[in-house]
Amino acid sequence: MGRYSIGVDMGGTNLRAAAITEDGKMLDKIAGSTPIQAGPDAVVADMVASIQALETRLGAAELAGVGIGVPGFIRMDTGVIAGWAQNPGFNGYPMRDRIEKSLGTKVILENDANAAAMGESWMGAGRDVEDLVLLTLGTGIGGGIIAGGRVLHGAQGMAGELGHITVSPNGYPCGCGNRGCVEKHASATAIGAMARLMKLGDNLSSQDVFDFAEAGDDRALAIFGAMGESLGIVIASLINIFNFPLYLLSGGPLPAWKFFAPSLLAEVERRSFTYRATLGSAPTRIEPAQLGNQAGLYGAAYLPLQSAPR
Amino acid sequence: MGRYSIGVDMGGTNLRAAAITEDGKMLDKIAGSTPIQAGPDAVVADMVASIQALETRLGAAELAGVGIGVPGFIRMDTGVIAGWAQNPGFNGYPMRDRIEKSLGTKVILENDANAAAMGESWMGAGRDVEDLVLLTLGTGIGGGIIAGGRVLHGAQGMAGELGHITVSPNGYPCGCGNRGCVEKHASATAIGAMARLMKLGDNLSSQDVFDFAEAGDDRALAIFGAMGESLGIVIASLINIFNFPLYLLSGGPLPAWKFFAPSLLAEVERRSFTYRATLGSAPTRIEPAQLGNQAGLYGAAYLPLQSAPR
Repeated sequence: MGRYSIGVDMGGTNLRAAAITEDGKMLDKIAGSTPIQAGPDAVVADMVASIQALETRLGAAELAGVGIGVPGFIRMDTGVIAGWAQNPGFNGYPMRDRIEKSLGTKVILENDANAAAMGESWMGAGRDVEDLVLLTLGTGIGGGIIAGGRVLHGAQGMAGELGHITVSPNGYPCGCGNRGCVEKHASATAIGAMARLMKLGDNLSSQDVFDFAEAGDDRALAIFGAMGESLGIVIASLINIFNFPLYLLSGGPLPAWKFFAPSLLAEVERRSFTYRATLGSAPTRIEPAQLGNQAGLYGAAYLPLQSAPR
Repeated sequence: MGRYSIGVDMGGTNLRAAAITEDGKMLDKIAGSTPIQAGPDAVVADMVASIQALETRLGAAELAGVGIGVPGFIRMDTGVIAGWAQNPGFNGYPMRDRIEKSLGTKVILENDANAAAMGESWMGAGRDVEDLVLLTLGTGIGGGIIAGGRVLHGAQGMAGELGHITVSPNGYPCGCGNRGCVEKHASATAIGAMARLMKLGDNLSSQDVFDFAEAGDDRALAIFGAMGESLGIVIASLINIFNFPLYLLSGGPLPAWKFFAPSLLAEVERRSFTYRATLGSAPTRIEPAQLGNQAGLYGAAYLPLQSAPR
């Protein structure tokens, strides 16, 4: 067996790790916990245990390194968590160095949405392109930008905050300080909020609203129509900015693709002449991502493979 | 004397060319015409004559190549003009090959706004950074994105159409098919249109409106305030997307910086937590460009130097 690497997806509650070969075959998987309340040292200890368990199972195969998708901002130069809004106790924690020290192998941290974008680029919907944008629809909207086959990080590793693109200058206020952020108009949370405003029900999930839409409920269909319009406005702007060949969406609301995609694509076609200009020759692709919640595992695993000497 | 290159700025009416050394010293300049009506062959002939005149004057110095900033989209792989909206007769014209054949030297075509962004990156306000975004405010709003010291082109060379970012989903209709493009709310033309709507006067230039603002006219000040807000919304989104260290503005309305910058910066500060997060350590710079209408000459000249073997 050739070289492999281990990709880790560190969520707010669960931790998953997978051993993946250089050509993208997942050899083994393991799940652990993220004991947030016990603090960063405990989280690292759990993560190291999971990684070592995988390593032991893989035996003599050569481990190229470990990539870890982490919520929040990472200072790429130092491997320090710089901004995890939900768990500020982790901010400033030198996570990369602590894990490297415990494991004795090369570790690369990456923002989780960036890792997912890299996963789609390596083994998912973006296998055949070098440039793509991924929007992850969840509680908020995350984003990852792959340019020339690499994550676009920006000056402080904060690039790709696509959920905070303004879609409506006087739209809903956002915790980030802005108003009309697209994540307030098109995330899973926003779908639930619109359901409440439409008197479809309180505390509905995007899955609940999807079920209403499947049953032909006009209000549910209107919600997905509005969601699609907001996404379409943002994706049209992203196409005008990047002229990349591929824009992907992932996350909980994706099963409702058939309900929100028509208004999304109509907005894009109307609002982006770059999109229209290339329709006849090399159409810009706007598609669901393909790897689901494994995108982050693949992307994290790819990071040490990408930068390792061959 | 060491190597030099020639940068050309091909406008809709005028043509300028400059010989610039590897370390950014402008040795000589020449102006010509762009005889659009006579067709692309005549334009090329005029351009070649200007370039050869410069070459002759420079004598024995080694010419590394010629870079040409051209309005519209360029297919970077073929050097063909793919979309010049104002002069569709040039579309499909193999301009690079024709010029190369006449000159017998390496020629690189580039979109004019991209060339200006590269010029600012090389010798202007972006000398000390690798990543920047330039917005050029004129009849419309053009844009150029420099990432890792190189022009970001996208799949068909159409990246950087920043004037068509949606700033107001139901704003003014734009010839591109969209509504609320930032260029309909913040270009020199938009300033004139707002002046008419404010009954400040018909057919006013951005300079005229600037003069009114200098005289303390409330309507003129409100126009620049609105312009700044629109630019601020877009620049906040660009910061959230790119986390680049530098965002530049150039063009006719720049003398009014003191009138539109306050509302621009207020919007950015409110709408981009990335901007706020880095204020204390490495503030994101939002500034006027430094090279004025010579940015395109510098940027075009840099292209053959950047890609030439050393």
